[in-house]
Amino acid sequence: MVNSCAGKMGHATAEAVVRAGLTLVPYSLTGESEAVAVGNVGVSGIPVELVGPEKRQQAIEKIKSEYPDLVLVDYTLPSVLNGNAEFYCENKLPFVMGTTGGDRDKLLADVKASGNYAVIAPNMGKQIVAFQTMMELMAEQFPGCFSGYKLHVAESHQRTKVDTSGTAKAVVQSFNKMGLPYTEEEIEKVRTVDEQVGRMGVPEQWVDAGHAFHTYTLTSPDGSVVLEFKHNVCGREVYAEGTVDAAIFLHRQIKAGGEQRLFNMIDVLSAGAMR
Amino acid sequence: MVNSCAGKMGHATAEAVVRAGLTLVPYSLTGESEAVAVGNVGVSGIPVELVGPEKRQQAIEKIKSEYPDLVLVDYTLPSVLNGNAEFYCENKLPFVMGTTGGDRDKLLADVKASGNYAVIAPNMGKQIVAFQTMMELMAEQFPGCFSGYKLHVAESHQRTKVDTSGTAKAVVQSFNKMGLPYTEEEIEKVRTVDEQVGRMGVPEQWVDAGHAFHTYTLTSPDGSVVLEFKHNVCGREVYAEGTVDAAIFLHRQIKAGGEQRLFNMIDVLSAGAMR
Repeated sequence: MVNSCAGKMGHATAEAVVRAGLTLVPYSLTGESEAVAVGNVGVSGIPVELVGPEKRQQAIEKIKSEYPDLVLVDYTLPSVLNGNAEFYCENKLPFVMGTTGGDRDKLLADVKASGNYAVIAPNMGKQIVAFQTMMELMAEQFPGCFSGYKLHVAESHQRTKVDTSGTAKAVVQSFNKMGLPYTEEEIEKVRTVDEQVGRMGVPEQWVDAGHAFHTYTLTSPDGSVVLEFKHNVCGREVYAEGTVDAAIFLHRQIKAGGEQRLFNMIDVLSAGAMR
Repeated sequence: MVNSCAGKMGHATAEAVVRAGLTLVPYSLTGESEAVAVGNVGVSGIPVELVGPEKRQQAIEKIKSEYPDLVLVDYTLPSVLNGNAEFYCENKLPFVMGTTGGDRDKLLADVKASGNYAVIAPNMGKQIVAFQTMMELMAEQFPGCFSGYKLHVAESHQRTKVDTSGTAKAVVQSFNKMGLPYTEEEIEKVRTVDEQVGRMGVPEQWVDAGHAFHTYTLTSPDGSVVLEFKHNVCGREVYAEGTVDAAIFLHRQIKAGGEQRLFNMIDVLSAGAMR
């Protein structure tokens, strides 16, 4: 069951659920105004009914009895994220939450205290999380391994993104531990079409449609050695697919009945391929 | 003390020793014919006397007493590698060996049995070893994380190299564990100047002078996600510098007097920046 199915990320995830051959519950929790105004949305031909906050308790009880293997996916707004998590926990509904923002500390503490099953991660892109984790591992295992090297980081996103990529900032912190002094402010934010297409290699149709391109270049003092790492994402597929993997993972965890009940994407990755 | 100092790799390492501000012992063990024919070689202005096998026992005793903090570096030939290691072990001479080939199992067993201090590694390029290790770690920690993705590997070396890059083959094995089916035979060996310069970005002066360029490209099933990793090396500096780091590391290990006496480059990397 994908909540906020009318949103871009929720919709992409719902499509990925259908693509994976899983059963998409034809209901989606959402804000009151949206539920009234939109009514229902089509996901790969399946009409999904939007359910506003006032009717959600009643709806969820019916859904729970009809779909005993229910796993929820939440891509709602940061402003309602904590309230949603409380609702899921009260109703013992296992959920995967990819929404960023909100009160993260409270979110994790609430879910942990409730004993509810959940995967919570600000980035559901499995392969990108794998890359990020790998860089952090390298920093921990091989401190100073790039000591003396020069770093350059460039990231490209749609022009409407004014702040610097959070992933780039996190990776720079790992590089710092590897002996590469570099500040967040030095990260090059590429936001002009010419540079995005010409230098970063962003396909033209993705320039404004949403993309996340990152290039990290490490050069030895004498220039004889260059290492370059890139992770280039167009659209939302990678996040939608990762969310489906997280949902499958969570369902397996429930069946296995282990001690741990709160997970992140590194747990999902460590468990191996889901499909 | 850098043995086989008349060889390209030995010479580059001896220069790196001087550049690091360490004392280069002005003697170098080598083959008899070379010792007689060449006599001595200049390293950054220091005349280094080549010592043939027949005089090496006598020479090494004098050197040991003159340089109590002696660490040897061996870049000799695969054919004499096992014999050299035996000589170092018998004389309790700590050594760093970057030579590839020879009987590796016997080499490691002999050194371990002798209780002598040594760093032995087929690749002394610290940053390249770090990358390789990182890929293997990722494979172990996140099996199947790139399941469904397509892999392409291209490597460029000087035209005289007929076999496929050993590093590329090792990294492909790691990728296999990450869910990417790919065989050694599929690795693209780039050996024409046009492709090397045009596509791989090899600087023209390094096309024949010795280079090792590697590009790994991972693409999601729908093409929306691309990860690319490159490690591009021109010349021998990275190996020479890594060898000096290994020598400094080994000297510190001797002073610390720990249990372990036989090391590889992952141990050197784990110990952090040496300079």
